[in-house]
Amino acid sequence: MEQYKIVIDLLGSDKGPETVLLGASLALKEFPNLFITLVGPKALVNEKKDELGLDMSRIKVINAEETITNYENPYTGIMNKPNASLVQAMKEVGKEEENYAGMITAGNSGAILMGSFRFLSDENKTRPCMAAVLPNGKGAYSCVVDTGATIDCSAGQLHSFARLGSDLMKKMYKIESPRVALLSNGAEATKGNHLVKETYPLLKEDETINFIGNIEGNQTLTGDADVIVCDGFAGNQVLKNVEGVARQLITDIVKLSKKRERPEFMEVAQYLMKSYDISALGGGLVLGARKLIIKARGNSDERAIVNISRMMLNHASGEAVLTQEQRNDALR
Amino acid sequence: MEQYKIVIDLLGSDKGPETVLLGASLALKEFPNLFITLVGPKALVNEKKDELGLDMSRIKVINAEETITNYENPYTGIMNKPNASLVQAMKEVGKEEENYAGMITAGNSGAILMGSFRFLSDENKTRPCMAAVLPNGKGAYSCVVDTGATIDCSAGQLHSFARLGSDLMKKMYKIESPRVALLSNGAEATKGNHLVKETYPLLKEDETINFIGNIEGNQTLTGDADVIVCDGFAGNQVLKNVEGVARQLITDIVKLSKKRERPEFMEVAQYLMKSYDISALGGGLVLGARKLIIKARGNSDERAIVNISRMMLNHASGEAVLTQEQRNDALR
Repeated sequence: MEQYKIVIDLLGSDKGPETVLLGASLALKEFPNLFITLVGPKALVNEKKDELGLDMSRIKVINAEETITNYENPYTGIMNKPNASLVQAMKEVGKEEENYAGMITAGNSGAILMGSFRFLSDENKTRPCMAAVLPNGKGAYSCVVDTGATIDCSAGQLHSFARLGSDLMKKMYKIESPRVALLSNGAEATKGNHLVKETYPLLKEDETINFIGNIEGNQTLTGDADVIVCDGFAGNQVLKNVEGVARQLITDIVKLSKKRERPEFMEVAQYLMKSYDISALGGGLVLGARKLIIKARGNSDERAIVNISRMMLNHASGEAVLTQEQRNDALR
Repeated sequence: MEQYKIVIDLLGSDKGPETVLLGASLALKEFPNLFITLVGPKALVNEKKDELGLDMSRIKVINAEETITNYENPYTGIMNKPNASLVQAMKEVGKEEENYAGMITAGNSGAILMGSFRFLSDENKTRPCMAAVLPNGKGAYSCVVDTGATIDCSAGQLHSFARLGSDLMKKMYKIESPRVALLSNGAEATKGNHLVKETYPLLKEDETINFIGNIEGNQTLTGDADVIVCDGFAGNQVLKNVEGVARQLITDIVKLSKKRERPEFMEVAQYLMKSYDISALGGGLVLGARKLIIKARGNSDERAIVNISRMMLNHASGEAVLTQEQRNDALR
């Protein structure tokens, strides 16, 4: 079995380094071909290694005690904190001789973007973006770019993100010509805010992508597009809305089950909870860098770290990040 | 029983004037205290009056055969088409001596905004915005402004919309000090796109509103705020997302019911369909004009016209647009 090495940043998570370390320990147990370089407080790893049963033969630790917080300016964080766990992790994953599959971090999104541009740029100095892959109503997946890395975007940036998203869907899901759509407030070409109207002709004229026009906010889960392009503000809304609305409907079902005294309705709630658990889907994929970086949500639990490790392994081995079987599982 | 007069624009709906006319006929049957001024093709009304059993003693017809389409520039539409049904309807509803409760139209959103500013401005020349009132998880209602009238907004406009939304919630739901929040990509004051960051201090410094800070996209249905302020692009996404995600989950439940051969799960699907039927909730409320204007969605069916007529009557009589009883009904 081929072995894969990944880097995990222990710091930056809302739940503290203990939770990320627990996730790493579970990933090592679940994937025997996984090697992990942990970047974070060495003392914590030493303190917890017996309790967690860490297999130290598959672990390397790089000590880091400094972090770039969510309240910090990403640029100054990256430039002025060479010892921050995120900076050290990015330098480590970039070492060609180490041949890492990628890295996982729950740190400051802006700093991840800034750092991946500074330390992991490709030859074209592409501006990285953040993508999410969501299961859609056609039983396949749609990719949303950008999901929050660049909150205020230019039309040129959206154009670049459209290409990155298209490339991802080609590679990951073997889609020959991914359908790329712009998220707007109406299907017509005349609809959109200034940014969307400026981006539309750029995408239309680009022959390297299959641009199908605008789609609306009620089509993000329908599978009408393989790649949904929007600025980071709108992309953040898409993800948070899916989570919020799904949670509200599930809560309604739980209440209904109690009110009508129909315990069997809880099966429906549990099924939906499994299907729409965004945290279990993993995190945001940073596109446009030399190495795959997956950002875990700030409030990720240990299970999310395991799932993201699985995504890393699937991606490295050329398999889909989420297989069709995993999607079908839920319907069984 | 007090009598109320409203204006209904027959043109501008995707489903044609026949559907709007059918809706008007059903509203007349359901609300015996309702009088309607129809603005649209007089020939159609004459042709259908027997078939629909129209009570012509409670109907006035203003002939209009021209419409401002969704593809048209709202400004030139309003300025150059004095005979368009929307323009005639707005002039009619503004007649003080007629004492209308308000008007209903499924026309071009931009033109409705432009027209209400031109023909129905208040003494301060307030720029109108569009609001939606959504049921929330606390069993109450939250208002979203703007929901699509102004796609690209300035901070000053968002500030004005925040006040209009707050006034609506005070008046309609007797909330003493409605909690006003800005929709952003994070709860912290440092989060947001340029517009949100510029709007934040304006809302914070305004002592006439109860500003509680930023909320995220997963809180639009939680009831954490009474008024959710955003530009028309984001507001359109909020409404469309609620609709799209709810529809996807309901579809999943229907599939699950079939796969597992559990017909009782269809009860859950039907319950959610009733709760999250955005079209049944009515339409968008235009705030900031002298008269209440409710925009029906372009694809509204006759039932939506009836529901919006009910909203009009409730609003005119000083009752809530949707009563708590109506919300509770669904939980019985």
